[in-house]
Amino acid sequence: MASAAKPALMVNSCTGKMGRAVAEAAERAGLQVLPYTLCGAAEAVPGSSIEVAGQQVALVGPSERDALIEKLKAQHPNLIMVDYTIPDVIMDMAALYQKHKLPFVMGTTGGDREKLLRDTEVRAQGAAGGAGSFAGGGRQGVQRQAVGDYQAAGVYAVIAPQMGKQVVAFQAVMELMGEKFPGAFAGYDLRAIVGSFKRLGVDYDVESIEMVRDPAAQVRDMGVPEEHLLGHAYHTYRLASADGSVGFEFQHNVCGRTIYAEGTVDAVLFLDQQIRAGSQKRLFNMIDVLQAGAMR
Amino acid sequence: MASAAKPALMVNSCTGKMGRAVAEAAERAGLQVLPYTLCGAAEAVPGSSIEVAGQQVALVGPSERDALIEKLKAQHPNLIMVDYTIPDVIMDMAALYQKHKLPFVMGTTGGDREKLLRDTEVRAQGAAGGAGSFAGGGRQGVQRQAVGDYQAAGVYAVIAPQMGKQVVAFQAVMELMGEKFPGAFAGYDLRAIVGSFKRLGVDYDVESIEMVRDPAAQVRDMGVPEEHLLGHAYHTYRLASADGSVGFEFQHNVCGRTIYAEGTVDAVLFLDQQIRAGSQKRLFNMIDVLQAGAMR
Repeated sequence: MASAAKPALMVNSCTGKMGRAVAEAAERAGLQVLPYTLCGAAEAVPGSSIEVAGQQVALVGPSERDALIEKLKAQHPNLIMVDYTIPDVIMDMAALYQKHKLPFVMGTTGGDREKLLRDTEVRAQGAAGGAGSFAGGGRQGVQRQAVGDYQAAGVYAVIAPQMGKQVVAFQAVMELMGEKFPGAFAGYDLRAIVGSFKRLGVDYDVESIEMVRDPAAQVRDMGVPEEHLLGHAYHTYRLASADGSVGFEFQHNVCGRTIYAEGTVDAVLFLDQQIRAGSQKRLFNMIDVLQAGAMR
Repeated sequence: MASAAKPALMVNSCTGKMGRAVAEAAERAGLQVLPYTLCGAAEAVPGSSIEVAGQQVALVGPSERDALIEKLKAQHPNLIMVDYTIPDVIMDMAALYQKHKLPFVMGTTGGDREKLLRDTEVRAQGAAGGAGSFAGGGRQGVQRQAVGDYQAAGVYAVIAPQMGKQVVAFQAVMELMGEKFPGAFAGYDLRAIVGSFKRLGVDYDVESIEMVRDPAAQVRDMGVPEEHLLGHAYHTYRLASADGSVGFEFQHNVCGRTIYAEGTVDAVLFLDQQIRAGSQKRLFNMIDVLQAGAMR
């Protein structure tokens, strides 16, 4: 059974800005951040480390990672992996976590999302046969494990390209409005205006959107604070009636990475709770985290 | 059974701005607006009329109204009453419509809303005994009438203080966000800014709201067009995270009365549809209208 202690985290990779922000948010939340972070062979010079949230974190390359993970698992039965790597490696990272039967929270964007979710779902249910397509190993045909077992073959995961839970709530609710009230805004014209230095994980249909890329216009027209010109995501959606007499406007404006880092920690706490409760469902997104309510 | 023709409307009172706007919207939608409008004894000088949507509309006082309504009912089996009167008379008007067994759409604001809804619900179900508290008559203990019968004892009604269906959709969805995602915005600070020359039916908790009453500030800070200074309702809701790094903003900005008038016509068409379908439910609000989808 899992220990009653708060989960321990390994954040990959703390060399990136999001990974670092999550490690800092986890420290603030009182979680244990292990002093190791997985990275590529080029970065992981033997003995190299970086300072993150007040501790030295060792950079661990591909050749050392399997042995280290098994050692950490034995020391921390409630270890959860957090992934903010890069689109090119998300399939490999997911396969690695699965191989070691470690629950994970993946906020990395990009890559083949559909395949990532499909493979994770298959593995999460511990399906027999060759259905999973991860490169990594993992025993086939395993049995369902005991409730609350962190080491269960069916690995629990939260996978979401947008970890800002308020932004997710906003997007979910806008979608719901269309579903619940079909045609309420018929005849209305939608104009979306996005000013963003970094995509930071927000999904949108680029076709229908005006991108404000000029920093001067970002400050002048969208109200981005100058100190956040290098890291912000401002989104404005304007709905106007055909005659122009009625307007609706929705904005979500984010400076920096704190909201995503905090949302990631929420996802970790949620996942820990699901594992302890022995949830049959094992693959989650941020809507699931939101619906479970605020946990802190 | 009701005729297959579009419903005929009597709009009370066309002497008011909202009544006039609804009559105009109904004409645009191809509905028949009867050339009579109920008003107070002081206004209804015998022979007096006003021009509304291209026709002379006779002003009908309290002493003539019962006879006129019975005559119109006989001529127009699918007559629907529309009420935009004043808070002081909504109970009397509702009782009048009930007495004549006429379906009605009431967009008038104010008054004792709870009592209005309770009494209408009791009467709508044609309940026996003295449960209803309307001053007006109406047979007691009547039987359920045939499906689709406009003259059924259980009178159908749409009662809503806010007829702007997009505004209602917006409000419903904001409420839903709180229900579905409890605590998602915990720690956020809400600031609501309202600029409004006329209340025009929007409900809000005045305690938590900054009212912008100065016309110059309405134009400068809220973007109200100068030509609409005398009739607009601009609402801005700002949610900010505790550290100020994340902001959400929601606005609904309405100039003039068109959105409310169009919504009222939608409510009339919806009510007509419910009567024809013999709906068991007889008292509706704008959420019901919205959920039924766009009808034109």
